[in-house]
Amino acid sequence: MDAAEFRKRGKEMVDYIADYLEKIDRRQVFPDVEPGYLRPLIPDCAPQDPENFEDVFKDIEKIIMPGVTHWHSPYFFAYFPSASSFPALLADMLCGGIGCVGFSWAASPACTELETVMLDWLGKMINLPEEFLAGKDGQGGGVIQGSASEATLVSLLAARTKTIRQVQSEKPDLTEADIMGRLVAYASDQAHSSVERAALIAGVKMKNVSSDDTFSVCGSALKKVLDEDKASGLIPFFFCATLGTTPCCSFDKLLELGPICNKENIWMHIDAAYAGSAFICPEFRHLLNGVEFADSFNFNPHKWLLVNFDCSAMWVKKRSDLTSAFKLEPLYLQHHHQESGLVTDYRHWQIPLGRRFRSLKLWFVLRMYGVTGLQEHIRKHVRLSHQFEHLVLQDERFEICAEVVLGLVCFRVKGSNELNKALLKSINEAKKIHLVPCHLREKFVLRFAICSRTVESTHVTFAWQHISQLATDLLKTWEQNHHQQ
Amino acid sequence: MDAAEFRKRGKEMVDYIADYLEKIDRRQVFPDVEPGYLRPLIPDCAPQDPENFEDVFKDIEKIIMPGVTHWHSPYFFAYFPSASSFPALLADMLCGGIGCVGFSWAASPACTELETVMLDWLGKMINLPEEFLAGKDGQGGGVIQGSASEATLVSLLAARTKTIRQVQSEKPDLTEADIMGRLVAYASDQAHSSVERAALIAGVKMKNVSSDDTFSVCGSALKKVLDEDKASGLIPFFFCATLGTTPCCSFDKLLELGPICNKENIWMHIDAAYAGSAFICPEFRHLLNGVEFADSFNFNPHKWLLVNFDCSAMWVKKRSDLTSAFKLEPLYLQHHHQESGLVTDYRHWQIPLGRRFRSLKLWFVLRMYGVTGLQEHIRKHVRLSHQFEHLVLQDERFEICAEVVLGLVCFRVKGSNELNKALLKSINEAKKIHLVPCHLREKFVLRFAICSRTVESTHVTFAWQHISQLATDLLKTWEQNHHQQ
Repeated sequence: MDAAEFRKRGKEMVDYIADYLEKIDRRQVFPDVEPGYLRPLIPDCAPQDPENFEDVFKDIEKIIMPGVTHWHSPYFFAYFPSASSFPALLADMLCGGIGCVGFSWAASPACTELETVMLDWLGKMINLPEEFLAGKDGQGGGVIQGSASEATLVSLLAARTKTIRQVQSEKPDLTEADIMGRLVAYASDQAHSSVERAALIAGVKMKNVSSDDTFSVCGSALKKVLDEDKASGLIPFFFCATLGTTPCCSFDKLLELGPICNKENIWMHIDAAYAGSAFICPEFRHLLNGVEFADSFNFNPHKWLLVNFDCSAMWVKKRSDLTSAFKLEPLYLQHHHQESGLVTDYRHWQIPLGRRFRSLKLWFVLRMYGVTGLQEHIRKHVRLSHQFEHLVLQDERFEICAEVVLGLVCFRVKGSNELNKALLKSINEAKKIHLVPCHLREKFVLRFAICSRTVESTHVTFAWQHISQLATDLLKTWEQNHHQQ
Repeated sequence: MDAAEFRKRGKEMVDYIADYLEKIDRRQVFPDVEPGYLRPLIPDCAPQDPENFEDVFKDIEKIIMPGVTHWHSPYFFAYFPSASSFPALLADMLCGGIGCVGFSWAASPACTELETVMLDWLGKMINLPEEFLAGKDGQGGGVIQGSASEATLVSLLAARTKTIRQVQSEKPDLTEADIMGRLVAYASDQAHSSVERAALIAGVKMKNVSSDDTFSVCGSALKKVLDEDKASGLIPFFFCATLGTTPCCSFDKLLELGPICNKENIWMHIDAAYAGSAFICPEFRHLLNGVEFADSFNFNPHKWLLVNFDCSAMWVKKRSDLTSAFKLEPLYLQHHHQESGLVTDYRHWQIPLGRRFRSLKLWFVLRMYGVTGLQEHIRKHVRLSHQFEHLVLQDERFEICAEVVLGLVCFRVKGSNELNKALLKSINEAKKIHLVPCHLREKFVLRFAICSRTVESTHVTFAWQHISQLATDLLKTWEQNHHQQ
């Protein structure tokens, strides 16, 4: 395919994408396929000779679409949102066209510099303390990671290196293995599985801190476990606070936790993967109070800020904490400016070496929506979740299971877990809408997350009526079965 | 921006990208900017109100392009190639449009299933042993990682878990920390820095194995260090063999190393990040002989197989080795089919949780080039590197520093390292072409890598004439200075 054909096919693809997104509400949100559906539909091996674009293009509807879960359908209420917007799609096309690999400043200066400045823009939008910004000569700064999991891992690794060096300087007779064996990381029992995974990767212990009855970790709970662990000779070194937990969007109490971490010399990382985008609205910014105690902070514009995946924004107060944990300098990656102190080589801030020009997406989205446009988007989602909450509350058969703060509603039928499992099954088998569940303590709970950019009040009303009807049908047979038994 | 405007702007962007790539040879390959160039060119913070697309679009040429290193310029001979092709760009647009997040089968079945089948296609193209393929009921299979660094890390972590469990079952009194402190990973002294980094992340020791005078690791070198380490109580558990090292594209001797690793119960991972793409040509497939001894294998279609970044293909013989090292199952990520054994949940195969629909790029590229088209691309690059090699060899002032096997030529002026540093400096300051250096033992060496999809014989001839002229100029002043001293 030459440039001339790309011009033609690229424009067809633009139209295909526009059609797909404009009419996505007409597609069934969750596919009908069974595991293994795709293999029989395509050849066993790659073609020897080139095929033409028409044949490939036709197969999108024939082979791919039947197996797609439509994350941007206004009937998709599962997991958390995955962002999508037209400005981000345009920027990503440009990113692909330029196709640079930005592992060092010299590998493409614009790629590095735009990222640094965009993370400053974004930091200012959520009113992050100055220390987290790069500015012209700050010690902190931001970086785009691929996912919140990587941000958690990177911060945990930086904390591990820092602690090992510190302990070794105080007790030079301890080996690195001795210290590693005594390090403990902490996070809420509501924290995302990626925190446990980060500790697993880093080879350190990880303990859950009990959350309270609002599913938040408070200071006393952390204090208690720290005291116990220190008394038994362990070395607490890392605490991951969550703002907006995955099960129910609860918030750890930063203002209590932060001072404890600072006093105990524990790295505090804040994972606000979903909730972080909301902090661009002044009325939600208070949820971030206490960030001033943190060493690192992360949230995902690719969840809720209309920047397509992947774009996970991470800031640190001291960039040298990251770079000193990772820095290795083979000659083929060295360049003229790197020792000047003026440049950032982002490869020292992350797990992979290569990186795409992802800041273009932020640049396009922030400029073409403006802060007000993005605030509107957040506020619409929060409004819709409260609309759903009110609908649930008006039906006495149902209960709300956690405070609705942002765009997530946790709810269930009053009754057994089996009943709620059956309800979820009937919802997801009907495939009019798509939800996923969670556990809150011993309860099986349904999560209703406002996800799509184009979801409106009518979709929420439809979803509730549908759920309510399925519940009615279910309760009828459920009671009959119950009687018969 | 609504869908209607996206149709218009998307098409403008397609033309912009086509223009950019068609006329990329007219742009200076390496930018003129100094560190910090970008910040003064744009506002301090995000705009409050939306800007229009024209203003953003104009800034691409004004602010971004002056700071771009043009990786796809036919005058770019630095690092290794980063792939770019029109079919891959089209597929990436589609990937963005669908915008699903494929962490589990249910999150978008097509995303998972196409990936599994594409990795089988690709595995067959390089004639990987059957055990590495997923097929319908294989124990192995492939996955797309973001980078070779992640593939190395994931395989090292799987090996770590496997070894710890094995040692603990044999010696139940050893703690995990005891074992961790004794684990050792190995790689060539020519291996990529990401191997050392993976060991650093995993918290295990890493040792270099000396390469021979062809910069390859042979069996006896590995055997020697293993024997020493075992004698001193260490536990060797992981060896990363490199096919196509970054400094000079040398090849470790798999047929000697593989049996040793198998006998010693050491996980052998093969990193063929750059060279792997060449194995689709029968005449280069012999370089992969010995892969049958490996536990995991990785190469980057995003380097040399015309699939835009990121697309790093990794295969394992036993997928359970990966999943058992990582598997964590919170309820919100569980789904109906996952215990059926029929589905793949790729989140257990990788570091991040989220993942894009990257297999679309492979599907488009493999179909629209066909195997023959891709072979032609590889063969052209190898032909051009030999062309450059011949030009160097005809000039008595120069020497070739390592065997030219694929698309990389390592060369230098006969003389001091200072002289060669000065030559590289004059080349990169002239900015007609772009190269990076490496060290081969004590020698400072220039790397000439064939990179661009559109590079032709004329560009190589031009590059050589340019280098040769700069060398003539340099040697004149160099000798004068030398006389004066």
